[in-house]
Amino acid sequence: MGSIVVVTLPEIINCPVRNLDMRTIIECVPNISEGRDAASIEAIASAVRATAGVRLLDVSSDTSHHRSVLTFVGDAAALRAAVLALFDAALARIDLRTHRGEHPRMGAVDVVPFIPIRGATTEDCVALSRDVGGAIAERFGVPVYLYEDAASAEHRRNLAEVRKGQFEGFAEKMKDPRWGPDFGPAAPHLSAGAVAVGARPFLIAYNINLNTKDLAIADRIAKSIRHVSGGFRYVKAMGVELAERGIVQVSINMTNFRKTPLHRVFECVRSEAARYGVEIVGSEIVGLTPADALFAAAEHYLRLERFSADQVLETKLLQES
Amino acid sequence: MGSIVVVTLPEIINCPVRNLDMRTIIECVPNISEGRDAASIEAIASAVRATAGVRLLDVSSDTSHHRSVLTFVGDAAALRAAVLALFDAALARIDLRTHRGEHPRMGAVDVVPFIPIRGATTEDCVALSRDVGGAIAERFGVPVYLYEDAASAEHRRNLAEVRKGQFEGFAEKMKDPRWGPDFGPAAPHLSAGAVAVGARPFLIAYNINLNTKDLAIADRIAKSIRHVSGGFRYVKAMGVELAERGIVQVSINMTNFRKTPLHRVFECVRSEAARYGVEIVGSEIVGLTPADALFAAAEHYLRLERFSADQVLETKLLQES
Repeated sequence: MGSIVVVTLPEIINCPVRNLDMRTIIECVPNISEGRDAASIEAIASAVRATAGVRLLDVSSDTSHHRSVLTFVGDAAALRAAVLALFDAALARIDLRTHRGEHPRMGAVDVVPFIPIRGATTEDCVALSRDVGGAIAERFGVPVYLYEDAASAEHRRNLAEVRKGQFEGFAEKMKDPRWGPDFGPAAPHLSAGAVAVGARPFLIAYNINLNTKDLAIADRIAKSIRHVSGGFRYVKAMGVELAERGIVQVSINMTNFRKTPLHRVFECVRSEAARYGVEIVGSEIVGLTPADALFAAAEHYLRLERFSADQVLETKLLQES
Repeated sequence: MGSIVVVTLPEIINCPVRNLDMRTIIECVPNISEGRDAASIEAIASAVRATAGVRLLDVSSDTSHHRSVLTFVGDAAALRAAVLALFDAALARIDLRTHRGEHPRMGAVDVVPFIPIRGATTEDCVALSRDVGGAIAERFGVPVYLYEDAASAEHRRNLAEVRKGQFEGFAEKMKDPRWGPDFGPAAPHLSAGAVAVGARPFLIAYNINLNTKDLAIADRIAKSIRHVSGGFRYVKAMGVELAERGIVQVSINMTNFRKTPLHRVFECVRSEAARYGVEIVGSEIVGLTPADALFAAAEHYLRLERFSADQVLETKLLQES
C-alpha cells in the first residue's frame, strides 16, 4: 500500500532556469504606492519573484514618497504573468483612500513601464503594454492608460500629464472624453485608482564633472546639450554643485542612449567646457546601464569596424542560456 | 502491479540551468587531434555538451591541420567533469599512431587551457589545471604537462617548447629529466601521447588598419608595440597587407587585455602612425572578446569615475543566474 517511489528525471538537470529565456530581455519597472510597510512590500515582491521566467533584480522603497520601485526582467510572456501577480498582491494590500505620500500617484500600482533590453523592440514592448493593459482591466477592473511609446494619442504620451489630478481627482478627470481609459471601466477603481502602462527606452543617469566651482558654467553647458533648449533630442540636463569636491557637474538623463549616445554628449560637453577654459575631470554612470551603451563608446573611440555585440563572450552566454 | 505514477516536482521549474553557476565563468578551449571525421568530432563535442553546468559555445575544425578546437564555459567543478568526459570520448576515437596533419601535436587531446573570465582568478585556473591534470593521469594513464601560468618550471611555460618533439619523438624526450611529466607515467600513452594542461589569460585578436599601402610602416609600428622588440608586455604584432582594400594593418594578439588594454595600444599606434603622416582608419576585434575589454575602453575615454561592471545590467543578469 504505502510505498516509496524514487523517480530520477533527466529533465531536472537539463531544464532551463525557471524558463528564463535570456535571448529576449525586457525590463519592467513598476512603481507601487506602498513604501512603508515592509511586510506588504515583501509580499508584492514575492509574487514577482515566484513567477517562472522572471528575475527580480531590485526593490527600492521611499518612505516619504510612500512608494516602491521594483525592477525585474524576463520575456514578454513571463512579464505578463509577473505583472498580473503583482497586481493581485498589490490590490489586496494597498488602499489609496488612506494613502498619503510626497510623490504624485493615481494608482495602487501607479505605473508599469516595459523597456526593451535585448532581442526585443519598442514595438514588442508596445504590444506587450496593450496585452498586459487589457488583461489588467479585465481581471481587476482597473482603468488602464497607455503612455509613452504605447500612447494612443499624443496628449497621453507624457506620464505627468496622464497622472495629473491624481487619485483624488481621477473620477472627475475621466469624465473628460480626452481622458477616457484605453482599457477598462469609465471610472477609477475604488481603492486602486487607475494605472499607466507603457513602453519606453532605458534611461541612463549620467553625470559629467568639470574642474570649476562656477555653477553658471555647468548650467550653461547643460542648457546647450538638453533637448528642450536646442540640444540633443534624448537629453535632459541641469547644472549641479558638488560642494564637497569644490567642483560642478552637468547632471544628465539620457532618455534614449541608442539615438543619443554617451560619447557624443561627452564630446559635446568637452567642447563647450573648453570654450570657458574648463576641462572634464570625470564622468559617472549612476545605477545601471545596458552593456550596449558602453560597447558603443568603445566602438566609437577605437573606431571598430564590423563590431557586433555577438562578439562579446558574455552576450553569447546570455543568448545561449 | 504495473501502474503509472505521475510526479510533479516543483524543483523542475526552479532548478538552476543545468547547474550553471554564472557568477563563476571559466573558459576551456581544448585542442583535439581530430579535424576530419565529423562523427568522431560530434561524439566528442556531445560528451562536453551533456555535462551538467557546462555550455559548449563553439567547435571549429580544420581538415588540413586535422585538429578541432572546442570552446566551452562553466565553473571549476563542471569543467573538470567536462574535460574528463572529453578525454573519455577522444581516447576511444583518436589514435595518434595513424594521425597526420599540418599542426604540431603531442596528444590525442593535445592541449587544455583554462581561462578566467569572471569571478575566477589565474590562481583558481592554476589550481584547476593541477586538479584536472592529476585526474587525467590517474584515470587515463596519459602523462600531463602543466604549462603557461600553471607551469612547474620556467622552461615548461611555453607550449611550443613543451610540444617540441611531437608525438613521434615524445618517448625519447621524456627520458630527459627536465621533461618528466607533472602527473602520470614516465612514458607517453600508446595511442594518446601526452597532454599539456594550463592556465592563461584570454587572448584577443585585434587589428588596427592604416590609411597607407606601405607595409614597411605597419611593420615598423608593429615592432614598436610588440613585447619582444621593446613594446608592451602583453602584445604580439606584425604588419599585414590588405591588398583588396589597398591599405595595411597592424595585426595584434593581445595576450593579457587587463594588463595591456586595447585603448593603450590603439593610442600608441595612433601616435606612431602620425609620425609617418598616417592615420588609423579603423580597428577590428576578430572573434570573441570579454565584455571587460570594451568596458575598459569606455571607462578610459569617458573618464568614468567609480565604474564597476556590476553596473551593467547584463552582468547583473549573469551574476544572479
